[in-house]
Amino acid sequence: MSTGDQREQHLRYLQRAVELADHGMRSGDGGPFGALVVRGGQVLAEGWNRVLATNDPTAHAEVTAIRAACAAIGSFQLTDAIVYSSCEPCPMCLGAMYWARPAAVYFAATRDDAAAGGFDDSMIYDEIGLDPAARSMVFRQLPVAGAAEVFSSWTDKDDRTPY
Amino acid sequence: MSTGDQREQHLRYLQRAVELADHGMRSGDGGPFGALVVRGGQVLAEGWNRVLATNDPTAHAEVTAIRAACAAIGSFQLTDAIVYSSCEPCPMCLGAMYWARPAAVYFAATRDDAAAGGFDDSMIYDEIGLDPAARSMVFRQLPVAGAAEVFSSWTDKDDRTPY
Repeated sequence: MSTGDQREQHLRYLQRAVELADHGMRSGDGGPFGALVVRGGQVLAEGWNRVLATNDPTAHAEVTAIRAACAAIGSFQLTDAIVYSSCEPCPMCLGAMYWARPAAVYFAATRDDAAAGGFDDSMIYDEIGLDPAARSMVFRQLPVAGAAEVFSSWTDKDDRTPY
Repeated sequence: MSTGDQREQHLRYLQRAVELADHGMRSGDGGPFGALVVRGGQVLAEGWNRVLATNDPTAHAEVTAIRAACAAIGSFQLTDAIVYSSCEPCPMCLGAMYWARPAAVYFAATRDDAAAGGFDDSMIYDEIGLDPAARSMVFRQLPVAGAAEVFSSWTDKDDRTPY
């Protein structure tokens, strides 16, 4: 496939992500965000923001699509897949990408577009880089016996599945 | 309640989070991470990492506990609740905290303890601060007609629930 054809394909899937965003919003399921996961020309899953429909603050379009795609292929890894999102992922969804490990992420609208719609992720982007004690949300570490030891139990576990 | 009593209470819940981490790991459900959500002295939900059990890369302990707590109270906001986690949240879970908006987050082990167990979140923390084009994972923005417009449709929507 030529580079131009590849770009056309990316744009078609992004257009679909925008359609899903519009659909989800009009259905009252949540904010105007859509996403899909594609591998080898096959759509593994589509998703849209369902925060309001499910009372789940983590049900962003990308998380919803990633969960559905992983369920569809029976794996917690999206190896060789591409995630298409109608908008630049928020930090939570960005973290989800690194755990799901797709080959690439394409998005259409930017975080500035989202901010204009009242979805201001920039505060979260700023907070993540801060030391826990410096964040606006209270984050406190307290030492508890055994808290670090579970990690050596994990690395010593004979039948563990590394991930 | 005195400050000392409050600290004792936080430590008891954190100890429970560590128990859940150990339980989940030994059950083979996922890595050694546990979390619970408490409000007004009532445990709304407990959770542990279920990435392996559910093939869901987003099923970290905190996300699992937040989703269950929100389902239990029928709200996408954890107002006045406290999240207790056996370990410092990864960037995905940190993002989930900001969307769920609990009053506070307490954790026991640190990201350095987790790294010693092979869970190196620091790469993700580093990547999140970078410009999308500079990340090790391919992140590309492509302009698509209508992508920004869904946000004005959202702000114009008479019956929308802001969140």
